[in-house]
Amino acid sequence: MAKPRLRVALIGHGFMGRVHSNAYRQAPHFFDLPYEIDCRVICGRNLETLAQTAATWGWEETATDWETVVARPDIDLVDVATPNVLHAPVAIAAAAAGKMVLCEKPLAISPAEAVRMRDAAAGVPNMVWFNYRRVPAVAFAQKLIAEGRLGKIYQYRATYLQEWGPDRSRVGNWKTQKAQAGNGVLGDLGSHLVDLAMWINGPINAVSALLHTYSADRDVDDTALFLARFANGSVGTFEASRYATGCRNRNAFEIHGERGMLRFDLENLNHLDFLDTNDASEVRGPRHLLVTGYEHPYAGHFWKPGHVIGYEHTFIAALSDFLTAAARGEKAHPDFTDALRTQVVLDAVERSAAERAWREITPTEMA
Amino acid sequence: MAKPRLRVALIGHGFMGRVHSNAYRQAPHFFDLPYEIDCRVICGRNLETLAQTAATWGWEETATDWETVVARPDIDLVDVATPNVLHAPVAIAAAAAGKMVLCEKPLAISPAEAVRMRDAAAGVPNMVWFNYRRVPAVAFAQKLIAEGRLGKIYQYRATYLQEWGPDRSRVGNWKTQKAQAGNGVLGDLGSHLVDLAMWINGPINAVSALLHTYSADRDVDDTALFLARFANGSVGTFEASRYATGCRNRNAFEIHGERGMLRFDLENLNHLDFLDTNDASEVRGPRHLLVTGYEHPYAGHFWKPGHVIGYEHTFIAALSDFLTAAARGEKAHPDFTDALRTQVVLDAVERSAAERAWREITPTEMA
Amino acid sequence: MAKPRLRVALIGHGFMGRVHSNAYRQAPHFFDLPYEIDCRVICGRNLETLAQTAATWGWEETATDWETVVARPDIDLVDVATPNVLHAPVAIAAAAAGKMVLCEKPLAISPAEAVRMRDAAAGVPNMVWFNYRRVPAVAFAQKLIAEGRLGKIYQYRATYLQEWGPDRSRVGNWKTQKAQAGNGVLGDLGSHLVDLAMWINGPINAVSALLHTYSADRDVDDTALFLARFANGSVGTFEASRYATGCRNRNAFEIHGERGMLRFDLENLNHLDFLDTNDASEVRGPRHLLVTGYEHPYAGHFWKPGHVIGYEHTFIAALSDFLTAAARGEKAHPDFTDALRTQVVLDAVERSAAERAWREITPTEMA
Amino acid sequence: MAKPRLRVALIGHGFMGRVHSNAYRQAPHFFDLPYEIDCRVICGRNLETLAQTAATWGWEETATDWETVVARPDIDLVDVATPNVLHAPVAIAAAAAGKMVLCEKPLAISPAEAVRMRDAAAGVPNMVWFNYRRVPAVAFAQKLIAEGRLGKIYQYRATYLQEWGPDRSRVGNWKTQKAQAGNGVLGDLGSHLVDLAMWINGPINAVSALLHTYSADRDVDDTALFLARFANGSVGTFEASRYATGCRNRNAFEIHGERGMLRFDLENLNHLDFLDTNDASEVRGPRHLLVTGYEHPYAGHFWKPGHVIGYEHTFIAALSDFLTAAARGEKAHPDFTDALRTQVVLDAVERSAAERAWREITPTEMA
Repeated sequence: MAKPRLRVALIGHGFMGRVHSNAYRQAPHFFDLPYEIDCRVICGRNLETLAQTAATWGWEETATDWETVVARPDIDLVDVATPNVLHAPVAIAAAAAGKMVLCEKPLAISPAEAVRMRDAAAGVPNMVWFNYRRVPAVAFAQKLIAEGRLGKIYQYRATYLQEWGPDRSRVGNWKTQKAQAGNGVLGDLGSHLVDLAMWINGPINAVSALLHTYSADRDVDDTALFLARFANGSVGTFEASRYATGCRNRNAFEIHGERGMLRFDLENLNHLDFLDTNDASEVRGPRHLLVTGYEHPYAGHFWKPGHVIGYEHTFIAALSDFLTAAARGEKAHPDFTDALRTQVVLDAVERSAAERAWREITPTEMA
Repeated sequence: MAKPRLRVALIGHGFMGRVHSNAYRQAPHFFDLPYEIDCRVICGRNLETLAQTAATWGWEETATDWETVVARPDIDLVDVATPNVLHAPVAIAAAAAGKMVLCEKPLAISPAEAVRMRDAAAGVPNMVWFNYRRVPAVAFAQKLIAEGRLGKIYQYRATYLQEWGPDRSRVGNWKTQKAQAGNGVLGDLGSHLVDLAMWINGPINAVSALLHTYSADRDVDDTALFLARFANGSVGTFEASRYATGCRNRNAFEIHGERGMLRFDLENLNHLDFLDTNDASEVRGPRHLLVTGYEHPYAGHFWKPGHVIGYEHTFIAALSDFLTAAARGEKAHPDFTDALRTQVVLDAVERSAAERAWREITPTEMA
Repeated sequence: MAKPRLRVALIGHGFMGRVHSNAYRQAPHFFDLPYEIDCRVICGRNLETLAQTAATWGWEETATDWETVVARPDIDLVDVATPNVLHAPVAIAAAAAGKMVLCEKPLAISPAEAVRMRDAAAGVPNMVWFNYRRVPAVAFAQKLIAEGRLGKIYQYRATYLQEWGPDRSRVGNWKTQKAQAGNGVLGDLGSHLVDLAMWINGPINAVSALLHTYSADRDVDDTALFLARFANGSVGTFEASRYATGCRNRNAFEIHGERGMLRFDLENLNHLDFLDTNDASEVRGPRHLLVTGYEHPYAGHFWKPGHVIGYEHTFIAALSDFLTAAARGEKAHPDFTDALRTQVVLDAVERSAAERAWREITPTEMA
Repeated sequence: MAKPRLRVALIGHGFMGRVHSNAYRQAPHFFDLPYEIDCRVICGRNLETLAQTAATWGWEETATDWETVVARPDIDLVDVATPNVLHAPVAIAAAAAGKMVLCEKPLAISPAEAVRMRDAAAGVPNMVWFNYRRVPAVAFAQKLIAEGRLGKIYQYRATYLQEWGPDRSRVGNWKTQKAQAGNGVLGDLGSHLVDLAMWINGPINAVSALLHTYSADRDVDDTALFLARFANGSVGTFEASRYATGCRNRNAFEIHGERGMLRFDLENLNHLDFLDTNDASEVRGPRHLLVTGYEHPYAGHFWKPGHVIGYEHTFIAALSDFLTAAARGEKAHPDFTDALRTQVVLDAVERSAAERAWREITPTEMA
């Protein structure tokens, strides 16, 4: 029986454009998708690189005007991989046109914008590319906690550390311009931290934050630090930075609970450390797991146990989850509603830093 | 300008069939290949899984008779991913038919067979899938040594450790049958060790070995240990095992030279440890490199610095190297000649173990 | 030429009493001290264990009344190893009697008390046992930063994590009683973090904190988290906890500067990670240093390079530094003045947590 | 009740003289010894350093003629810490005089000499300072295996790697002279490997070895590699080297058994990795144990859990074990008989290397 065709428009052709293109090409190789993917059109503004990206990845057409593209009747899914400032207009227009919508993170540049996006997309399948939920080790950590293997959670510690902030060759990058990005490292890397933290450990109730900019020529934050209280009674520390010399891409967390500990670092994405207090004290220590087994989330779809995967596999698995849910009429997560909640926390972080005081996050904001 | 088409026949559709299929699909996405790849036919004996593999990976046709396939005029490249015992007949027939030939490792089940294969393939582009040469960290290690960064080499230590030997569910696997595999872990994992060692550190002159079988129901070695003398005056230890409880896929080496040290482990394939004796003593220690930069081999073709890759990328890069060389009329390595040399060393290991004495490897054997 | 005799009275005979006793016995074996140490009297309240400790460690006399002891004319140095609440009365009385004074950390249970102690001890040699300054790896880190090897500092991250908080067998321990300890983990472990941070990275100007108590039956903090701004423009995160399941004694810091990175963890106290941005990008990574060389601080006094030391060596080295400075009429650090500054920061942390707002630390408070 | 006095003569005042002196001073502080130790006389040939060592460590007398010393009636225990060549004459004379005898490793420079030493010491308490048996992590590993926690052992891998071989400032060191040391790294570091391996994994039955000297001006081996078969059916690889650039003191082993894995490295002597195949596959990985608990061997005698110890503690614990056994009329291990067995294996290694063939070790030799 032939699968229904899913005609995709990708808006954006930068690094994320490549990563998403790869996901469309690779997902059918590893997952039994409910659709046959048709890479119909890729949209961008730099004609030269656009043509090259289209040729390399097999996009049938190129386009430069996203408004026309998202309205085309022969498109089923719009994937937004633009600078942040364009997420809302593109996603809202696509949803209004009845398309499925995938959107890069952070969802929006303000909670108000995120609310509009969530409302606009309420009737169509939607998801935000917080891809790190699909790292097998991360998904496995979430599962262990959901199963109660750590018992009551005491503390959560998360960092996302990069070092390119001082690199003068990156001056002018859209990620360092408020007009394009909304804010700096907080939205770029901090959003990943908050998405993972709330997925794994539940809602954040209050934050106290510090934002700091080292570069005189930037109008966005280079580092974002905050303390948090979770609804489940645990407390946490968060740090996102582009000035963490020595760290290339350290998206890491560590969680302490009454029955165990979990620790992850994206620079070693196939591994997870797990400590179980059921182990007798003399043989208790963090177990260094290689999360590549058939019994681990996602891993069995790729290679054999012991054969590691890379960064892009998280997008492949996310796409599979999204399409599978869409075909069933179910929600895939994180959807725009989830991402709005992350946006609310990021906004509270910004306000707390500005006001130099704790900021509560009310259930109303989270609704 | 259109690229010439390269019509591929893949003989074999097991795990390696999937990995090679992926390479054909992915190589054009990351490398500027000199050919347009046409996945023409996949050949195997299990009709059900064959059809499924073909459908998943987009092979145009399936076939069950390799002899017919390798003789087809519409095939340019034959890729041999069968059990070891079939490498020679398939590769020799393909070469005789004038096809480019790619062959899984180990090349053959004896040096005599390997000689025939080398001779048969002398006139066609050929390469053996010792894929780990294309791990960026491994290629970078080789480059550092070739540039003299370690100076004179003193010692080389290599292990390839897996743990599935005692797993009763694997009984009957062709890798544990002499008739199918030629030998056991020595050819399966030991061949990788020897290929990397001779690529990185030059020819091996002599070996003293021990082969051991733990399983009463097997006629092949479960573990292979040997000492070696290299032509450059260094000495080494080698260990391949399927009984190394706790090790999923630890293909590791450590090299000590007068000016430094290098250390690699496949379970952390994006990292390499490098010690430089030029560093002042008080700040000298192994540098834990994340080998994902634009300045590292291969890595820049995939994602951005700090974004890790996985197992399959080594095949993608190997395929690119092979096709690029083939189009230029150059040799890609390791070719059948290189792999014959590895076969000679493996044979010396078997003989040494049988004779319980050192075994010299003569230049004649290596020629 | 005979060395002058230094007659010591140790007030306290618990775990710290043992550790200090060891320092008096071992310091002369590894350092050329300016005094001959005379272990004159050990003072405590549990007669049985007091007698045993005295016998084991060779204290000439025991006593139960510290007020009498500190006034004895045949005592030159009083070492305070009591629960926190007694630090001030014992140290002030000892100083008033003209004795040299060593005091366990934290110095006091309030800044006001610490001011009185500092003033009382102004005329006598004094030091606080923040022993971790004398870990060779820590002292080496401080030296590298003082020499400018990290350039301008961007971020400082420190944790001191233990896991005994939930252990019911520890209920009633004086460290969990406000009346004995002043506060909880903040003073116990957080004081070490602040002492090291200000020694290594200079004064802290402002903090925003969260204190949390998990145990219903305790009146002190079980975890203390805070953000900080340093006078040098860098920012930091701090976390002290007794509920960090999986961590036995992880006193760790990581520092990012414009020219490098440093990382330390007490559970591996002989190692230090150091990254130098002068290294070419392709060979740049954290160097894992074994800090046991003759060229490293303190290490050369103990064993040969490569031979690791333990926890107690930090006390031995601290005692040597103190006595050497005292004999020269110089100050050893951290003295009561330094420790008062730490106390001021801890107090600001408590106030910030109570007020749920940032708390500035004024130069006046630090004076 | 007063303990009997034990009057000690230490023959040797170099690095090992310091380490042993420390053990005599520290053992009573951590262990309840059956004797009161009296550091009676230290014997050496360099008068200046001898006097200084005696003063620092409190030896009552110095002497330069060991023959006189070992015959003194006021000596109960003779501790031999001389260059290897003197072990036999001193130990034999001491034993002949009825003294308890402690001897540095390797016991002798030949099996024949070791036999004479064993026979001479048959009537007196004796032990060899293979101190690494008393690393808590090593003793715990041995205990786990003895209890069957690893089941049947498959493979044993051991390295002892140092890097000072090429250091020209060490030319002339007695350890690099055959006349003083008997052999090179084989006896110096390889003896530790063999002692630990046979203690943990039982007798070695056969070896195939390679010895190599890099330095033209030395008559001893700089590196020693060998394969081994154990009596229990397991196989092993061994490597001792002074040319392992980047390794300061890496005395490491890894053991794979049917039920688990163990891994140790002296550069992290407070840690042990342990994998238990009883753990469910998805949460199975090496547990990184901090071996500092009350339930671990020796550790509880020193500091609290989580507080690490150093190199010298192994000698302190060894001395305690020896004296405790001696007072009870029991044997402490490794005694001269155990060390003779190690000597026989080292001799087989040398013969195998010379003959370039496997060398069996007969039960007769081991007796």
